[in-house]
Amino acid sequence: MTGLFDGVFDHGPAAALTDDTAWLQALLDVEAALAHALADSGLLAPERADAVAAACTAARYDPGELGRAAAGGGNPVIPLVRELTARVREADPEAARHVHRGATSQDVMDTAAMLLARRAGGTVLSDLRALADHLRALARAYRDTPMPGRTLLQQALPTTFGAVAAGWANGLSEAADQLEHVLYHRLAVQFGGAVGTLASLGRDGPAVAAALAARLDLTEPVLPWHTDRGRIAELAAALGRVCGAVGTAAQDIVLLAQTEVGELVEEGGPGVGGSSTMPHKRNPVAAVSALACARQAPGLVATLLAAQIQEHQRAAGGWHAEWLPLTDLLRRTGAAVAWLRTSAARLRADTARMRSNLDATGGLALSERVTTDLAPELGRTEAHRLVTDACREAVDSGRDLVDVLAVNLEGVRSRGRIAALLDPADYLGSAGAFTDRVTGAAAGRTGPVAHTDSEEGAPTPDER
Amino acid sequence: MTGLFDGVFDHGPAAALTDDTAWLQALLDVEAALAHALADSGLLAPERADAVAAACTAARYDPGELGRAAAGGGNPVIPLVRELTARVREADPEAARHVHRGATSQDVMDTAAMLLARRAGGTVLSDLRALADHLRALARAYRDTPMPGRTLLQQALPTTFGAVAAGWANGLSEAADQLEHVLYHRLAVQFGGAVGTLASLGRDGPAVAAALAARLDLTEPVLPWHTDRGRIAELAAALGRVCGAVGTAAQDIVLLAQTEVGELVEEGGPGVGGSSTMPHKRNPVAAVSALACARQAPGLVATLLAAQIQEHQRAAGGWHAEWLPLTDLLRRTGAAVAWLRTSAARLRADTARMRSNLDATGGLALSERVTTDLAPELGRTEAHRLVTDACREAVDSGRDLVDVLAVNLEGVRSRGRIAALLDPADYLGSAGAFTDRVTGAAAGRTGPVAHTDSEEGAPTPDER
Amino acid sequence: MTGLFDGVFDHGPAAALTDDTAWLQALLDVEAALAHALADSGLLAPERADAVAAACTAARYDPGELGRAAAGGGNPVIPLVRELTARVREADPEAARHVHRGATSQDVMDTAAMLLARRAGGTVLSDLRALADHLRALARAYRDTPMPGRTLLQQALPTTFGAVAAGWANGLSEAADQLEHVLYHRLAVQFGGAVGTLASLGRDGPAVAAALAARLDLTEPVLPWHTDRGRIAELAAALGRVCGAVGTAAQDIVLLAQTEVGELVEEGGPGVGGSSTMPHKRNPVAAVSALACARQAPGLVATLLAAQIQEHQRAAGGWHAEWLPLTDLLRRTGAAVAWLRTSAARLRADTARMRSNLDATGGLALSERVTTDLAPELGRTEAHRLVTDACREAVDSGRDLVDVLAVNLEGVRSRGRIAALLDPADYLGSAGAFTDRVTGAAAGRTGPVAHTDSEEGAPTPDER
Amino acid sequence: MTGLFDGVFDHGPAAALTDDTAWLQALLDVEAALAHALADSGLLAPERADAVAAACTAARYDPGELGRAAAGGGNPVIPLVRELTARVREADPEAARHVHRGATSQDVMDTAAMLLARRAGGTVLSDLRALADHLRALARAYRDTPMPGRTLLQQALPTTFGAVAAGWANGLSEAADQLEHVLYHRLAVQFGGAVGTLASLGRDGPAVAAALAARLDLTEPVLPWHTDRGRIAELAAALGRVCGAVGTAAQDIVLLAQTEVGELVEEGGPGVGGSSTMPHKRNPVAAVSALACARQAPGLVATLLAAQIQEHQRAAGGWHAEWLPLTDLLRRTGAAVAWLRTSAARLRADTARMRSNLDATGGLALSERVTTDLAPELGRTEAHRLVTDACREAVDSGRDLVDVLAVNLEGVRSRGRIAALLDPADYLGSAGAFTDRVTGAAAGRTGPVAHTDSEEGAPTPDER
Repeated sequence: MTGLFDGVFDHGPAAALTDDTAWLQALLDVEAALAHALADSGLLAPERADAVAAACTAARYDPGELGRAAAGGGNPVIPLVRELTARVREADPEAARHVHRGATSQDVMDTAAMLLARRAGGTVLSDLRALADHLRALARAYRDTPMPGRTLLQQALPTTFGAVAAGWANGLSEAADQLEHVLYHRLAVQFGGAVGTLASLGRDGPAVAAALAARLDLTEPVLPWHTDRGRIAELAAALGRVCGAVGTAAQDIVLLAQTEVGELVEEGGPGVGGSSTMPHKRNPVAAVSALACARQAPGLVATLLAAQIQEHQRAAGGWHAEWLPLTDLLRRTGAAVAWLRTSAARLRADTARMRSNLDATGGLALSERVTTDLAPELGRTEAHRLVTDACREAVDSGRDLVDVLAVNLEGVRSRGRIAALLDPADYLGSAGAFTDRVTGAAAGRTGPVAHTDSEEGAPTPDER
Repeated sequence: MTGLFDGVFDHGPAAALTDDTAWLQALLDVEAALAHALADSGLLAPERADAVAAACTAARYDPGELGRAAAGGGNPVIPLVRELTARVREADPEAARHVHRGATSQDVMDTAAMLLARRAGGTVLSDLRALADHLRALARAYRDTPMPGRTLLQQALPTTFGAVAAGWANGLSEAADQLEHVLYHRLAVQFGGAVGTLASLGRDGPAVAAALAARLDLTEPVLPWHTDRGRIAELAAALGRVCGAVGTAAQDIVLLAQTEVGELVEEGGPGVGGSSTMPHKRNPVAAVSALACARQAPGLVATLLAAQIQEHQRAAGGWHAEWLPLTDLLRRTGAAVAWLRTSAARLRADTARMRSNLDATGGLALSERVTTDLAPELGRTEAHRLVTDACREAVDSGRDLVDVLAVNLEGVRSRGRIAALLDPADYLGSAGAFTDRVTGAAAGRTGPVAHTDSEEGAPTPDER
Repeated sequence: MTGLFDGVFDHGPAAALTDDTAWLQALLDVEAALAHALADSGLLAPERADAVAAACTAARYDPGELGRAAAGGGNPVIPLVRELTARVREADPEAARHVHRGATSQDVMDTAAMLLARRAGGTVLSDLRALADHLRALARAYRDTPMPGRTLLQQALPTTFGAVAAGWANGLSEAADQLEHVLYHRLAVQFGGAVGTLASLGRDGPAVAAALAARLDLTEPVLPWHTDRGRIAELAAALGRVCGAVGTAAQDIVLLAQTEVGELVEEGGPGVGGSSTMPHKRNPVAAVSALACARQAPGLVATLLAAQIQEHQRAAGGWHAEWLPLTDLLRRTGAAVAWLRTSAARLRADTARMRSNLDATGGLALSERVTTDLAPELGRTEAHRLVTDACREAVDSGRDLVDVLAVNLEGVRSRGRIAALLDPADYLGSAGAFTDRVTGAAAGRTGPVAHTDSEEGAPTPDER
Repeated sequence: MTGLFDGVFDHGPAAALTDDTAWLQALLDVEAALAHALADSGLLAPERADAVAAACTAARYDPGELGRAAAGGGNPVIPLVRELTARVREADPEAARHVHRGATSQDVMDTAAMLLARRAGGTVLSDLRALADHLRALARAYRDTPMPGRTLLQQALPTTFGAVAAGWANGLSEAADQLEHVLYHRLAVQFGGAVGTLASLGRDGPAVAAALAARLDLTEPVLPWHTDRGRIAELAAALGRVCGAVGTAAQDIVLLAQTEVGELVEEGGPGVGGSSTMPHKRNPVAAVSALACARQAPGLVATLLAAQIQEHQRAAGGWHAEWLPLTDLLRRTGAAVAWLRTSAARLRADTARMRSNLDATGGLALSERVTTDLAPELGRTEAHRLVTDACREAVDSGRDLVDVLAVNLEGVRSRGRIAALLDPADYLGSAGAFTDRVTGAAAGRTGPVAHTDSEEGAPTPDER
């Protein structure tokens, strides 16, 4: 981490696993594994392979110098092979003749990219799993805590904070599952030589490819994929989806932390998110940073998808156009997940505020339940008219709907009955049951459903 | 198909499965299935469900009118439910009270989108499979046909047309596998009611959701996914990847059909791709159209990925922003695949041209084989100097390398031996073996590898 | 408007100006103008040009049939010219021989696209201007109405609703200026013939091109721009920017309309945005729809920017890939602007709520002013300590800062002085002056700045 | 330049003007200018401003440390102001109290971004101008050199290499004009304080803003633009368009350099683009690298356009999401232009190959001219039949069209007349005239138009 923006955009462990040193080591790991694979296939003496591998340490090379030299041929593998060969030659001239044997630059770059994705993606994955666990714990803890459900950013019916956290956890877990699938089943070795025929290895090409895959614990592909970029597209899509799941939760946190909502606070400790001059402000800095990272993903994914169209046996530009967006996408995704994990760790739920926000709409959200309760006696039309009038009266006068209905329905329903019908904690449907599915709570446990209106054929609470 | 651009962009069967009528029918199918699911769960008499279902025929509704009415509430489900309820009421007033019960607009839209994706995606998938089969047949037929391999659009070492077609087929097959996975394992029913709690169904919500999923043959999700758009992102990514695989093959066809290359021709029949005034032109119109469709995918995918960040229990804009890009992405992908299938069906390979293009570089591509052959006798350095000089002489004088070397190596190697070393058909490495893996040819069969240079530690044919 | 989603996505006048009929008429207008341009250049008798123009009425052609026929050659101009020629031939066989003379399909498509952009863009532009006027009127009306300024969605210092509306108006006006520049200075005629040389017109090409530009009131380009798509990129960018300006205002409206904020309401009248079952909900449907449209722009712009890279004299796919995204971008932008105009017309500001939201943070936002006021007497450090302690006490106890400070500063500052220092209406800086710049109020008028702290070197209110 | 990929992606001078040091210096330049602007407005003694400015040297700060500290508040300005204040305090404690006065972090970041854009964009602009000049020189030199015009990558009618180079130059010049407009008229100072009211400066805010703009030679905006990101969108669009113009030319170069086309070669000198083992390969590495850079632009622009939608007075994530994409877009554009300039400098046109490629289609492209020539004598229908038959005969038999027609038209037209009609150098229309418009050649000079067919009403050479 040396950069001005790293604190924000390279948060978490993925940054160090995708920097210049990580790339360089991945490239060298491929060259070393190739030497060993040649030996495994009987094409090279094992001690020669060891001689090659001994020179494959990133610290012995200067990424800046290699970068400058890369301008000549258009990629950094060309000067790296030159340097590597020179270093091997010092120790074992015969081994030097077998450096990079059978391979083309793209073989090494692509395979190194897969290693990088496995390594950085692996840490993103474990961060994701830990984050989802944390959110599941929140879901368990707040399983029965009512809060306003909101549609189009307007309060609608009640839900629970448990269900909300369970929704975040589930989205992140499914995104993690997809990422895991790509990381452990789709990342494949690239080994095809100049045009994908491995001609210089005669009939030994496939054996070396298989040995290389085994050495690096990567998938062996059906055939070289120099211009079939489906694997990159799948990886990009999995990362883009992780960013979507992160962004959704982070956006919710930012919204719930609004001064006027106040249901969540990021408690960042001294110097974090607060302001000495504005003590009332509690900026959800971690969630904001997660959002800032996540929002960069769609454009990067689009670049990688567009770059899929590559010419003939190896592309003129489309391939090169992948390197930076892929690296950046890994970094941004890693930082997005790390920031959301930081945010989740800092999160404090204000359950009183959740309740008072719910109460602020004074039972209006649940007025349909009163209609349903009255319908059998008064007929549906009359029941609906009575309740609608009461709602309007409550809104216009600023009074609570309970109070208005207690007067208007005197002799028909008691105040207590009306209050029970309008109690949000009593109208949470399957929020608890759904939460339990995510948290893995005992299957038998059911949500806090008091009684159902279902036989009545209640009008559907559509957000029209 | 009614539009000016439909011939180009709505080619193939996916167009009709994603038009207004298809959308309308999908929405109605969800409402009908919901009525049946309520019945399956004991919440509605089966004959009432039948009464609802009886009104669920697209032809009875006017999409234009519904579209206009949708402006009021922001989505077409609201007026559709109104119209549907009115039609059901005519036949069965009691049944009418149960229309859309428990559901919110987004439940119906999202589930309908899944149905649409299944239907249109299903036809895309079978087109893809048929296309890959066709290309595999090409790969079998041209397994041993040498053609120039090209990197950075420059001729490099030889490959075979079989290997090229196998590469296209494999990319398309893997893209089809991913699409199939999404279509049959990830498309899930959406059913959560206003805020995802299914409150109006009391404790019966999950049972109805399960019945709905069974009725529509869609996955039952862990919990409602109103603002967890991972499924849409996965679907979009799978389609975007299909477009990449299509685009790669289409681009290659366009390049191989160039006047100066001429290795492939799209034979479109009278009036297709030709020109009466320019009889030498044979525009690969189908491949061009496939490319035109495929290139629209990355931007549409990016829109869908960016729309993943949705607020609270139901989003304000992000959700609505999905409808058209998702529909368009299904259409464009369907058309891209259909066009490439058309192109493949029209394709004629000019194997003589492949050979003459190969010969045009006069053996220069294979000069390294001569070096390798000479090295044991002359020493590597001297061998390399000799061959490099001959190459330069050949390029400068415009003579064939065989002729130059026959003179320069007189007494060292016969003309015949030199010609054999420089024969592209004899330097195809594992092209045949790789092709066989894709076409499923007998595992024992091996590629046309005559003899290997591998013990020599040949210099690597990197495309520097 | 015939589609299920048109009510939402084709709101406003741009939709009808970009539909199939509009495209068809634009294509025919180009053919008619070309005939006249040939006449203007002395290459065709004027009455022959009239005969061509007489057949150039969209109603005489079937877009669906042309669309189907377009599949053969890859674009709809080819069958249109065939049909047009046939119709002209009926009336004037000699004139028929001059239909489309000198032109290639792309000349007609590109020039028609320019006409379409001018026409649909022109209506977007006047909608934008009217919208900005409306917002400027709001800015004038609420010039001095304090409301909470919010950063990172947290209340910070006060601003005015006037300044907020002025900011929206200014962003939209600048976007309109850029769009106007593109529409009236950058939309150019395309006329180059098969490869941009106008060879079939001999040396008359440039004269015909100039006459064509004059006839259509489009710019005459320096040379044909078949594969130089800068004009399309500029148009796309201008539309994408309009969508950004619309989206920003729409997003703010949605946020300010939240149940817990309530500073703005979209009053949509019966059946619009409300809910009979949830009378407290007032969905800002128009702003939400504006957002939904605006969010589709970046992906469409990216497609058009990526399509700029076009091959040789006319592209294989990149050009075709522009037609739908460009049309969609015009439609989405038109609808976004129209929806925001609808939203603005429905908007009601709740100034009491603005004030009570401000008061809810009890003066904390302005605590720095007390520090500044005390510093000369008590020294900066002591002043800061005193005020910070009071802020913490107020937050912890839930009391108003005025009350806490009135006690803590007894004998140092009067309650009235403290209240004045903490009055948000008295700390609006240049909000009024900035608003006046946008509304064009008398230059002499200044904002409600009571007294300045500037000599004191107040600590900067950075949002740390 | 320290990175592994810098040689490819940070080619040219823009890289050094957008690195960490450049960013840091730009931030400090804003703080220094702000101190001077306060002095200019009479709010600070000039010597205090000098004391602040004296500490504003990037070398005195550690970007890595600032970056790490930025994580706390979400942006690097917060720790930078802390560090800067500390350094100023050492020299002048009173001056230290005025550091960053009136400003918020975003004011400094946004204004610094404008400075960075001006500086890096300025060097991109002069590279662009030099590149366009170079291409104009090519256009002049090859004004009358015929080469095949190609549509859909098929040979169509002839054009000239001069016209091709003029087309590239014109596209780049127009892109440069747009970039210049943005750089010198749209880059504005940002100065609004916490919520855009400049409240802490009382009524002096606008004066300080004006002084700041003057000091930095940036535009003074109508009002603070914290959440009106139109300027960023315009800048991004201008850069995205430059990349399109670069990509188009680079793509053409790559295509013209194909082994089978060979009309252009990048002569890179030893070690550049060539291969010791494949002496026939001449990789157009510079054009490929230009393409690789240019193709990354659309995704980055889309990210910036999508980030335009920012909340309230300062955004939660959207703003932060701009920093890296904007920096990367400047770098990629700079590298794209620099690479194309490198490519252009290396370019060698093979005019003999242009001619032989033209001749390879044996006059078929110009067959319409023979029809036109015969029509007055034989009637149009008969003329067309005769020529079409001859074309088919030529294609089927592989003979030259001249030879076929010389036989078939014996007695009607001489072989010489036929050869003249089919001579591509004689059918270049306005290629020369268009080229002259771009190169600024004497207005009187006209293209090589021998005689015109125009009175005949030649059939239009549409690329059907």
